[in-house]
Amino acid sequence: MAPTAVPVSGTQLNSPAPKGKEALANGSNTAQLDASKIIYKFTTNLRAVPDEATANTSDETICTDHMITAVWRASTGWEAPELKPYGPLSIMPTASVLNYATECFEGMKAYRGDDGKLRLFRPNLNCERLNVSASRISLPTFDAAEMEKLIVTLLSVDGPRWLPKDRAGGFLYIRPILIGTQARIGVHAPKEALFYIMAGFIPRLDSYPGGMRLHTSPDDLVRAWVGGYGYAKIGANYGPSMIAKQGPHMQGFHEILWLYGDKGECTEAGASNFFVVWKRKDGKTELITAPLDDKLILSGVTRRSCLEFVRQKLIGDIEVTERKFTIGELFEAQAEGRILESFATGTGFFICPISQIRHRGQDIMIPIDPELQAGEITHKIKTVLGDILYGRANHSWGVVIPEKE
Amino acid sequence: MAPTAVPVSGTQLNSPAPKGKEALANGSNTAQLDASKIIYKFTTNLRAVPDEATANTSDETICTDHMITAVWRASTGWEAPELKPYGPLSIMPTASVLNYATECFEGMKAYRGDDGKLRLFRPNLNCERLNVSASRISLPTFDAAEMEKLIVTLLSVDGPRWLPKDRAGGFLYIRPILIGTQARIGVHAPKEALFYIMAGFIPRLDSYPGGMRLHTSPDDLVRAWVGGYGYAKIGANYGPSMIAKQGPHMQGFHEILWLYGDKGECTEAGASNFFVVWKRKDGKTELITAPLDDKLILSGVTRRSCLEFVRQKLIGDIEVTERKFTIGELFEAQAEGRILESFATGTGFFICPISQIRHRGQDIMIPIDPELQAGEITHKIKTVLGDILYGRANHSWGVVIPEKE
Repeated sequence: MAPTAVPVSGTQLNSPAPKGKEALANGSNTAQLDASKIIYKFTTNLRAVPDEATANTSDETICTDHMITAVWRASTGWEAPELKPYGPLSIMPTASVLNYATECFEGMKAYRGDDGKLRLFRPNLNCERLNVSASRISLPTFDAAEMEKLIVTLLSVDGPRWLPKDRAGGFLYIRPILIGTQARIGVHAPKEALFYIMAGFIPRLDSYPGGMRLHTSPDDLVRAWVGGYGYAKIGANYGPSMIAKQGPHMQGFHEILWLYGDKGECTEAGASNFFVVWKRKDGKTELITAPLDDKLILSGVTRRSCLEFVRQKLIGDIEVTERKFTIGELFEAQAEGRILESFATGTGFFICPISQIRHRGQDIMIPIDPELQAGEITHKIKTVLGDILYGRANHSWGVVIPEKE
Repeated sequence: MAPTAVPVSGTQLNSPAPKGKEALANGSNTAQLDASKIIYKFTTNLRAVPDEATANTSDETICTDHMITAVWRASTGWEAPELKPYGPLSIMPTASVLNYATECFEGMKAYRGDDGKLRLFRPNLNCERLNVSASRISLPTFDAAEMEKLIVTLLSVDGPRWLPKDRAGGFLYIRPILIGTQARIGVHAPKEALFYIMAGFIPRLDSYPGGMRLHTSPDDLVRAWVGGYGYAKIGANYGPSMIAKQGPHMQGFHEILWLYGDKGECTEAGASNFFVVWKRKDGKTELITAPLDDKLILSGVTRRSCLEFVRQKLIGDIEVTERKFTIGELFEAQAEGRILESFATGTGFFICPISQIRHRGQDIMIPIDPELQAGEITHKIKTVLGDILYGRANHSWGVVIPEKE
């Protein structure tokens, strides 16, 4: 029943992001996102940095002193980014984002290493993925490298005070986000958008005592579908999923294992990727996860890193498979004693061991080593990736943030 | 990859709206939405009312002097509503609505009648539907009658000046909207929300010269799916659909005819309901539209009113059928000369005749009477409902707004 305006030609909204100077060569005559043009408007009111307990129990996310914003207009392109005090946004009631969910985001962390350095983990992948998401939700794209520079800029300013060197092993959560701000009622690609980056505290989620317990999705709820947008990190994938966690079935369970289709393909766990380590019927040990090709699931950075690590370093011991697999296959494997481990991956969860899956009243119980608080292979992957995050191992995936001494 | 907080118990978020005093009897101890508590904060700066041409060509929706807002908190319930000057909202960057699309809305119109009175059309249906949408997107529900009173209040204040009696035949568009405002990163039902109502101008969309031309949805795009939320008026149904209208295939076309499933079931046209009038193979004239039972499409107020009118008044002449029907059936009917008329319905479009449907390069051409600018039956329905909207016929569906003389 919503009115729809005349079609926006808007092909520029949906084309791949032009890269740097190439953009001009390609004939685009609107301004590109350019981190070098940043305008600094430092806060004059530095806020107190909370201790970890306070940060984790707050009903509102506590963010650092600054955020970065950049305005886009269809007619002129990207304005100069600003670094400015963190605070509320002024948004018109008619704004596209509030009415039509024209929004997409990323989730990343900055890790304070054992060596005192602050690192991002493969930030280029997040920046490229935000472009994929932006295209899907009819928001403007940009040069991913410029976005990465802006993230580094924010952390260079706020990192030293908000995640000081004596907090080794700690992290800040970074949320880059792009929203449609045109103040117009009508279903059409917005002609104005706001990109912003904030950093704050979220709880550590990678180690539920005894493992994470999953309940399969209710039979009448589907998270994403073929021809939809499960692969894109857009708000529309998250709000509508919240209802699945409400109700008595979740008593004692942490997250939903989202099934898809008549056969119950395992897709995502909560808002993270889902892995199983099992013995195949031929006796081979296999790490299995849902595939990307039907665009049902998010291509997680941690997912990809797990797969790459196991393929490169554990080859011979473990076969890596990306294919559709069903809840029925898991029950069959359980009956035959072939399930070894399971875990969820994501920036929020990092690598989180799973100990139980309930489906229609029946349970799959998955062993967790009480010492390691994980299965052996899960623990190995978690250790190797954790060492990269926290600078215990030198690796190109860890990108050091320059900070003032 | 988004972090998910500990499950919110939140069953109250998802239960049907308690009705008035019954709420207290039911043991709810948070405050209900109560229109009688409204606080008036009138503007001291009345803005100029634009003429229709200005209003229709603005890149931003021009709204009236005031809006109504009401804050909800999980702990305390609904605060007193406020009528206050229309203007920007202050929203935290971490707000649920911006990150996770926790948002739902309604679209209604207030019509200035030939008799000088201002009317709503079946507003109770919109208010009840917003509760359905709110439940689906994990936002709070409320007494629909209180929402209707708030809409009437806004129009009583702004109607006389913004849609004066000398603008008979004109309308104001009304957008009630509910957004999740809790400033917390993490996928969980928001504990704070804002309900607001605004009124403004949108273009008249019910009469494209020569009829509305539809292009079927691209093969790789699906609007809504069984187990999803196509029936709910939530932002997540709209933003992701915008991409379908971008690209050269839309040259010369106004809206998308959304197909579903392998057989290409016809579901919605743009963001409105889709109807065909045809001769069945048995020679009977039939008005057909997609059914509601699989929750793929919105239960439109105009859709329902069309069906009720034809069932009550044109019985004998026209059979009314709500069932799945496919694009293939339309092509077959066209080949056999059985297609008589087609139209889209919605608050924005009202009843909009359709003259062409293109699918994979092939066209279905539908006759439009050049005099009526519609088919005969479409014109009859449009006339009867239009007479109710504009007070030319006295009918319980038209609800008069009290205004100061």
